[in-house]
Amino acid sequence: MDFSKLDGLVPAVVQDAESDEVLMVGFMNEHALAETMRTRFATFFSRTRGKLWTKGETSGNRLEVTEILVDCDDDTVLLKVKRLGDGAVCHTGQRSCFFRALPEDAEGAL
Amino acid sequence: MDFSKLDGLVPAVVQDAESDEVLMVGFMNEHALAETMRTRFATFFSRTRGKLWTKGETSGNRLEVTEILVDCDDDTVLLKVKRLGDGAVCHTGQRSCFFRALPEDAEGAL
Repeated sequence: MDFSKLDGLVPAVVQDAESDEVLMVGFMNEHALAETMRTRFATFFSRTRGKLWTKGETSGNRLEVTEILVDCDDDTVLLKVKRLGDGAVCHTGQRSCFFRALPEDAEGAL
Repeated sequence: MDFSKLDGLVPAVVQDAESDEVLMVGFMNEHALAETMRTRFATFFSRTRGKLWTKGETSGNRLEVTEILVDCDDDTVLLKVKRLGDGAVCHTGQRSCFFRALPEDAEGAL
């Protein structure tokens, strides 16, 4: 993995292994990826708090990782996961963090 | 959108609108997002070349954007796309850039 492009981080896309929904995007440093591989629970590096966090460590809505894919230039990972707990991945209570569409503009483009 | 967390960029996850495959992840600055919205073709900011590029501008394998979703904290976008050209999104000729799995370690974890 190439952690050099974003100061030691790579984006980690989280996709539901069953429904194929994209649930969230977090960032991982090398330690977060190693912890994810060791524990099988998705673990990220919080850019705002400056430390590792395991998704669902307080809510119980952990993400059990079933597969980790790496992209062609080794700077992004894709986690296939099983949602545990009540299945809400977003802190707002939604299943996915991507629940809002960008509005169309006046010309009818996206 | 909050472009402040990554020096003016946000990650852009590209998902096939039909098959739900995650195809690639690029980065967008405000201009790339505006161009994507205006042209409906996925356009990114190249961190290595320091300029905008429209996916498929040379190969013809453009990505027609059918929907743009924004995540809960406004710092990541998810593009639903239709693959044009021969449908290969990765420069290696694969449909998706995520075609390699991380190997399991000696303990049988991921």
